[in-house]
Amino acid sequence: MRPAVCNTLQRFPYRPQEGVLLITPRPLGERADPRTQEEERMTQTLDTPTQTPAQRAERWFADFEEALRARDVARAAGMFAATSFWRDLVAFTWNIATVENPDGVADLLTATLDRTDPTGFAIDEPPDEADGVTTAWFTFETAVGRGRGLLRLVEEDGEAKAAPKAWTFLTTLYELKGFEEPRGPARPMGAEHGVNKDRLTWLERREKEESELGISVQPEVLVIGGGQGGIALGARLRQLGVPALVADKHDRPGDQWRGRYKSLCLHDPVWYDHLPYLKFPENWPVFSPKDKIGDWLESYVRVMEIPYWGSTVATKATYSPEKGEWTVEVERHGKPLTLRPKQVVLATGMSGKPNVPVIPGQDVFRGDQQHSSAHPGPDAYAGKKVVVIGSNNSAFDICGALWEHDADVTMVQRSSTHIVKSATLMDIGLGALYSEEAVTAGVTTEKADLIFASLPYRIMHEFQIPLYEQMKERDADFYERLEKAGFWHDWGEDGSGLFMKYLRRGSGYYIDVGAADLVADGQVKLVHGVVDHLTEDAVVLEDGTALPADLVVYATGYGSMNGWAADLISQEVADKVGKVWGLGSETTKDPGPWEGEQRNMWKPTQQDALWFHGGNLHQSRHYSLYLGLQLKARYEGIPTPVYGLQEVHHLR
Amino acid sequence: MRPAVCNTLQRFPYRPQEGVLLITPRPLGERADPRTQEEERMTQTLDTPTQTPAQRAERWFADFEEALRARDVARAAGMFAATSFWRDLVAFTWNIATVENPDGVADLLTATLDRTDPTGFAIDEPPDEADGVTTAWFTFETAVGRGRGLLRLVEEDGEAKAAPKAWTFLTTLYELKGFEEPRGPARPMGAEHGVNKDRLTWLERREKEESELGISVQPEVLVIGGGQGGIALGARLRQLGVPALVADKHDRPGDQWRGRYKSLCLHDPVWYDHLPYLKFPENWPVFSPKDKIGDWLESYVRVMEIPYWGSTVATKATYSPEKGEWTVEVERHGKPLTLRPKQVVLATGMSGKPNVPVIPGQDVFRGDQQHSSAHPGPDAYAGKKVVVIGSNNSAFDICGALWEHDADVTMVQRSSTHIVKSATLMDIGLGALYSEEAVTAGVTTEKADLIFASLPYRIMHEFQIPLYEQMKERDADFYERLEKAGFWHDWGEDGSGLFMKYLRRGSGYYIDVGAADLVADGQVKLVHGVVDHLTEDAVVLEDGTALPADLVVYATGYGSMNGWAADLISQEVADKVGKVWGLGSETTKDPGPWEGEQRNMWKPTQQDALWFHGGNLHQSRHYSLYLGLQLKARYEGIPTPVYGLQEVHHLR
Repeated sequence: MRPAVCNTLQRFPYRPQEGVLLITPRPLGERADPRTQEEERMTQTLDTPTQTPAQRAERWFADFEEALRARDVARAAGMFAATSFWRDLVAFTWNIATVENPDGVADLLTATLDRTDPTGFAIDEPPDEADGVTTAWFTFETAVGRGRGLLRLVEEDGEAKAAPKAWTFLTTLYELKGFEEPRGPARPMGAEHGVNKDRLTWLERREKEESELGISVQPEVLVIGGGQGGIALGARLRQLGVPALVADKHDRPGDQWRGRYKSLCLHDPVWYDHLPYLKFPENWPVFSPKDKIGDWLESYVRVMEIPYWGSTVATKATYSPEKGEWTVEVERHGKPLTLRPKQVVLATGMSGKPNVPVIPGQDVFRGDQQHSSAHPGPDAYAGKKVVVIGSNNSAFDICGALWEHDADVTMVQRSSTHIVKSATLMDIGLGALYSEEAVTAGVTTEKADLIFASLPYRIMHEFQIPLYEQMKERDADFYERLEKAGFWHDWGEDGSGLFMKYLRRGSGYYIDVGAADLVADGQVKLVHGVVDHLTEDAVVLEDGTALPADLVVYATGYGSMNGWAADLISQEVADKVGKVWGLGSETTKDPGPWEGEQRNMWKPTQQDALWFHGGNLHQSRHYSLYLGLQLKARYEGIPTPVYGLQEVHHLR
Repeated sequence: MRPAVCNTLQRFPYRPQEGVLLITPRPLGERADPRTQEEERMTQTLDTPTQTPAQRAERWFADFEEALRARDVARAAGMFAATSFWRDLVAFTWNIATVENPDGVADLLTATLDRTDPTGFAIDEPPDEADGVTTAWFTFETAVGRGRGLLRLVEEDGEAKAAPKAWTFLTTLYELKGFEEPRGPARPMGAEHGVNKDRLTWLERREKEESELGISVQPEVLVIGGGQGGIALGARLRQLGVPALVADKHDRPGDQWRGRYKSLCLHDPVWYDHLPYLKFPENWPVFSPKDKIGDWLESYVRVMEIPYWGSTVATKATYSPEKGEWTVEVERHGKPLTLRPKQVVLATGMSGKPNVPVIPGQDVFRGDQQHSSAHPGPDAYAGKKVVVIGSNNSAFDICGALWEHDADVTMVQRSSTHIVKSATLMDIGLGALYSEEAVTAGVTTEKADLIFASLPYRIMHEFQIPLYEQMKERDADFYERLEKAGFWHDWGEDGSGLFMKYLRRGSGYYIDVGAADLVADGQVKLVHGVVDHLTEDAVVLEDGTALPADLVVYATGYGSMNGWAADLISQEVADKVGKVWGLGSETTKDPGPWEGEQRNMWKPTQQDALWFHGGNLHQSRHYSLYLGLQLKARYEGIPTPVYGLQEVHHLR
């Protein structure tokens, strides 16, 4: 559904003050430096003592750890380049935060160093070097947990003789000490050997839990929304031993997908879509059909033993700061019930809250009207006239399927859309991190997630622009035809393409799987304009054009996720939390100031004990770990002072 | 449920005429030879040209391929040691067959060489050497397929100067040319890009297939029995594109496990139990509880899209040699239906056909009587008197659970049983091939399966005996207590322990997860003898001992799988096929002559188009590939002349 990651491994430009360095990292494991070990040893004796990537990285970590141990913030901050980025996922900040440049580093360390007490920085595979950037994977410990990260070192201002400095520095927490996950060598035994008169079987324990959780035993965490986001988080919390309940309005897990238009397939490829702990099998299709992913989610819930309530709607939630507890009214299979969790996570989805325009005449129109999320597919509309309002992903998918079923389809384009062809995006945009080749080269999903997480949002568009320039060139004929047909096409305001649009505004693009040709060829009619009103049997634009219609589909997108908080809790709380999603990039639908991270996602908000979780399968997988660890720490009573709590600059 | 594999990697004795070589292979990837590459190069120039393991293996393969290409059977056979074993899984023989010694090799090659036309033998990872045995993984091709295998070379009679000869040689087929499986880089696209007016969605295609297969479209293969065996084979056939239907009398996949006594857990650990294509997740318990494995099987059927008919009983099958087709009468949800598959696989399980003894007075006894497979668990029997007849796995599990629920339990031991403690078996018996450590050391499940398959059944007991001697020593106190309590304990007739008992007779052992202590301590009463008759309220032994009973459990095992063929087809066909399972080891319940392989399992039988599939999860996983390829070849019309068709020496 959502677009793909940038392919930062293919072109990774580093721009110190005086110029541009183009970096082309290779698959992991391949030596960047063609010198043999012997040549390297020779170089060492002849040259400076910090010539090899390993030595450079080791030296940096030794110095950094010494500075940290001495609580010498200035010295540690001085080890970062003038333009540099430290991204921390929960390990130092109990937040998802990026600080910039030595002063940002100093600020972060001043606030967090004493209680974090980081130690044991260790490089855990041979560092790599390419075009002036040394890359090193490492592990470390804090007072309460264990982490891993990725460092990129550069020589600042071409000062080859000076010690290299950190350009990007990623630190992530992966486990809390004393609360290691039961998996791999620590997996549970399952059978309890020996004899025990009080033994409960696995089934009896499951049934007991099912009869109690949410009824006589309150969950620590209530996750509202059981799509891929809620399910991935449910699996993490289960694994971390946090009593949590995932509730969803649909009957069965996966119905969120099953209920959508029938031609829907994931637009992201399988390597990008794995859930935690259990990967798709090797025969899984590249692009999952919606019902198949629905079945997978349902099976996953069962296999992971995630407590999941279907047919459950949360109607009202209030928080008591005194009790540190929510009161959430739900209807389960229509029966009212009150839950009292300590934490509430809204995992209702980026595409959860339909944005349906209010248009005069909607009450007069005699045909069907559907938001794209409620469109059942084309079967009933063969030979009918259909007007689809909108020109992004859902609009194209729906137009394509209707055309295939011999409907007479008109697309109303209201504003410019960015289109890339699916195969092109896979090759140029995703290949190095998420592909069969990446897996073969040792870039596991987990590794790809960390590489991707290590790229600062601030400069991500710079890495994206050249990729989209490649795509433009490769598919030049296609774009020419499309524009000739009158389609308003763009590449994002700064030419940075699809993934930045996704991060900034979550809309404005189509990953073409074929339907764009229908528009280019005129098979699907294209009109531009603003809808003025509906009549009994037509959509009328502001310029007076009347489009006869038996069906109107509003492919008009979704609102900000804090709209859910307004509905469920109160407008006051929604406003207190502010806009969810976006970076503050000062582009359309993503006003500034710069936020550094995605607004309010997977991290503490201005409302105690209220969290937002969601995004595509990649984000649901990766960020559920950090949200899970934040919730686990609170459950276990580990202090979690938050550095850099999200400020509110926009209400929705 | 079934026992574990031998740990041949820990002690692997090679016995040429004059002595014993003890081999202790290491985890793969670790260098056996501590010499550096440079030392090796030096050795090469100073010493004979066949010094390194790689050179020895390369030389052998070059010579072997040359002999095969020249169709020089005598020369090729002469490259095998006087005592040697070639095991072929389908690649040369279209059978599962082991030949012994140069004359056996000559016989196999004479029959198969021309049509197999093997070429391209290539070593695919650095060969290893330890204690006089060189081990090499290799790949090769035949006229119709691609294979991989494992070679072990020895210097015969200590003739260090002579070319080394093959001691064990495993060849396996893994794919048919032109019919490669759609997975990994060849996985399906899922979404069909472009526009297509005849498009069916994934769901529509699935629904169409479901409405047609077995009704208007006949399956190529009918798999009767949908436990782990039928399901694993169903997945293989699905993946190979062979239209197959799996039918089972139970309602849902996994009910075969769910319906059994409630304390049941797998007795084999998770690393041994993976199904094809989709491994258990890293948080899966070591020993799966029965309901959890049931849920997994059900999810697996859905995820793998295996056509599966629940609540379906096959009542009658007849084969028409003229049509090359079966007529199988089934009742699906009680409704009669006729299927006409080309091939029938009985996957009803080693533990599929209960063996219930006929005892006078069974009609008079007023309490409950159950075969172990129908025992519901202990809940209804608290405070009741229970007599369990038998002293193997099920008997112990059931006694233990009943004791935990405060039943008064007596075990009737009729003959000697072999017991090993579960943890001991895991450590000593399984660890090197199927464990977390093995996985970490690079021994994937697939690799472990091939290593295990490379060990000739003929000499397997020799590798097993020292392992069980270790176990005996480690748990000496336990065995002393057990024997002091009067329990008849054995280690197999030749001291080769549990796994050989499994392969030879499929019974006679208990993997102790705790209940043996209850017998040793007298908490579960133990009596010996033969049951003479039942009265209204007691079991009476031949010596006159009366055991009062409210419940009698017959933990009396299962019959030969060809009993299923007798019930379903005819006694004539069952007798034509003969006994299923066992090796012909001339030990109890496994009479000679030596068969070389498990009787009638996963390979052609004397009845055209009738196959037996089953065993533990390891066997269901591994051998389903070879059975699947045999069925695929027949479906595609590839000639499959069988070398060494199973002879019949015993009827049941």
